[in-house]
Amino acid sequence: MADIPGYTYGTAEVARSPVSLEDLEKLKQTIQFSEEDHEYLRMVGEALSDQTDALFEHWMSLFGPIFMSYFAGPDGTPDERYLGAAHPRFVQWIFDTCNRTYDQDWLNYQHEIGLRHHRTKKNQTDNVDSVPIVHFRYLWAVVYPMSAIRPFLARKDHSDEEVDKMHQAWTKALMLSVILWSHPYVKDGDW
Amino acid sequence: MADIPGYTYGTAEVARSPVSLEDLEKLKQTIQFSEEDHEYLRMVGEALSDQTDALFEHWMSLFGPIFMSYFAGPDGTPDERYLGAAHPRFVQWIFDTCNRTYDQDWLNYQHEIGLRHHRTKKNQTDNVDSVPIVHFRYLWAVVYPMSAIRPFLARKDHSDEEVDKMHQAWTKALMLSVILWSHPYVKDGDW
Ligand code: HEM
Ligand code: HEM
Repeated sequence: MADIPGYTYGTAEVARSPVSLEDLEKLKQTIQFSEEDHEYLRMVGEALSDQTDALFEHWMSLFGPIFMSYFAGPDGTPDERYLGAAHPRFVQWIFDTCNRTYDQDWLNYQHEIGLRHHRTKKNQTDNVDSVPIVHFRYLWAVVYPMSAIRPFLARKDHSDEEVDKMHQAWTKALMLSVILWSHPYVKDGDW
Repeated sequence: MADIPGYTYGTAEVARSPVSLEDLEKLKQTIQFSEEDHEYLRMVGEALSDQTDALFEHWMSLFGPIFMSYFAGPDGTPDERYLGAAHPRFVQWIFDTCNRTYDQDWLNYQHEIGLRHHRTKKNQTDNVDSVPIVHFRYLWAVVYPMSAIRPFLARKDHSDEEVDKMHQAWTKALMLSVILWSHPYVKDGDW
C-alpha cells in the first residue's frame, strides 16, 4: 500500500481540506452515517478483498465508455499508462473507504481526490496529457451504479440483514466522499 | 395542482435549462435510469399518494433542524409563511418526479428548482427575507435519507421484488434531479 506511485495519503504533500471536522460531523449526521456504519464498512472491505477485479469489470460494463473517455490521450484513445497508474490508487480507495478512520488525514485526502478529478489537479499526478477535467455530472452519475453492489456483498457468509447494512454503509460512504470531492467544482461560498 | 402559488411548471416563466436533452439522455444511461424506471415511479407515486404527510414528518425527524434553518427569517426562527408556501410545491415535486415525462419542460423545471435553492433565486418566489442559499453540501446530504423510503413503499400490495425496483427507481430519479439542480452551484464549464 505504501508503494503505490502517486498515492500520498497522510503525507505532507496533501494540503489541508477547506472543510472542518465539525462540518464533516454535521454532514455525517445528515446522511445518517454513524459509528455502526464503520463496522459494516469493514465487513464490506473483507467481502470485496478478493473481488476487486470482478467489481471493476462490472463497473466498466456499466459505464466504461464514459469513464475511459476521461483517460483519453492527445489522439483521443485511452492512455494506457495513465489508466494503469490510476488503477491501483482507485483500488486502494475502496479499502481506505472501508477501513480508515474518517479523521483529518482522511478529510484532506478526500479533498485531494476531488482536486485530481477537477481541472485544478487532473493529469498532474501521473504527468499525462489528457482531457482537463472529469465533469461534475459524471462524478455524480456513477454514484448510483457504484453503490449498487449488493450481489458482490451477498457472496460471502452474511445474513440478508447484514448485507443490507453493508450495502447501506457503502452507499452512505460514497455519498459522503463525493460531496467532499465536489468542493473544487462549486463556486466560492456555495459549497 | 394548477393552483399552487409559485408553481410554474411548463409555463413561459421558466427559463430554458442550460442542459440539453442529449446530455440528459447520457446522464440517464450512466445512472442506469430506463423506461422501466418510469413505470416503477408511477407505482411509487401511487404508494405515496396517501402518505405524504407521514413521509414529510419522517424526513423532518431525520434532518428537520438543518432543513428549518434555511427557512429562517430575520429573527433566526423559521418563517412560517415561507415554509407554508414552499410546502405544497415540495409535495407536488414528489408527484412530478413520479408521473411526469422527463422532457424539455421537466428539464427546465429541474433547473428552476436548482436556482430556487441557489442564491440566484432563493427567497424570490415567496418574496421572503431569509438566508441567501441552501448550501450545496446539504442539498446532497439529504439525498440518502430521502432515498431510504422502502418502508413507505412496502406498505401497499407489492411483492418484495417490486418494492425493490420502486425503491431503486426513486433513488435514481433523486440522483438525476439533484445533479441537474446542482448546475447553478458549479463553476462555469465544470458541470
Ligand atoms: C464516485 C465515483 C468515482 C470514484 C469513487 C472514483 C475514484 C477515483 C480514485 C480513488 C482515483 C485516484 C485518485 C488518486 O489517488 O489520484 C480516481 C482517479 C481518476 N478518476 Fe475517478 N472516481 C469516480 C468517478 C470518476 C468518473 C465518473 C470518472 C470519469 C468519467 C473518473 C475518472 C478518473 C480519472 C481520469 C482519474 C485520474 C485523475 C488524475 O489525473 O489524477 N472518476 N478516481
Ligand atoms: C434532494 C433534496 C431536496 C429536495 C428533493 C427538495 C425539494 C424542494 C422543492 C421541490 C422545493 C420547491 C421548489 C419550488 O417549486 O419553488 C424546495 C424548496 C426549498 N427547499 Fe428544498 N429540497 C431538497 C433539499 C433541500 C435542503 C437540504 C434544504 C435545506 C437544508 C432545502 C430547503 C429548501 C428551501 C429553503 C426551499 C425554498 C426555496 C425558495 O426560496 O424558493 N431543500 N425544495
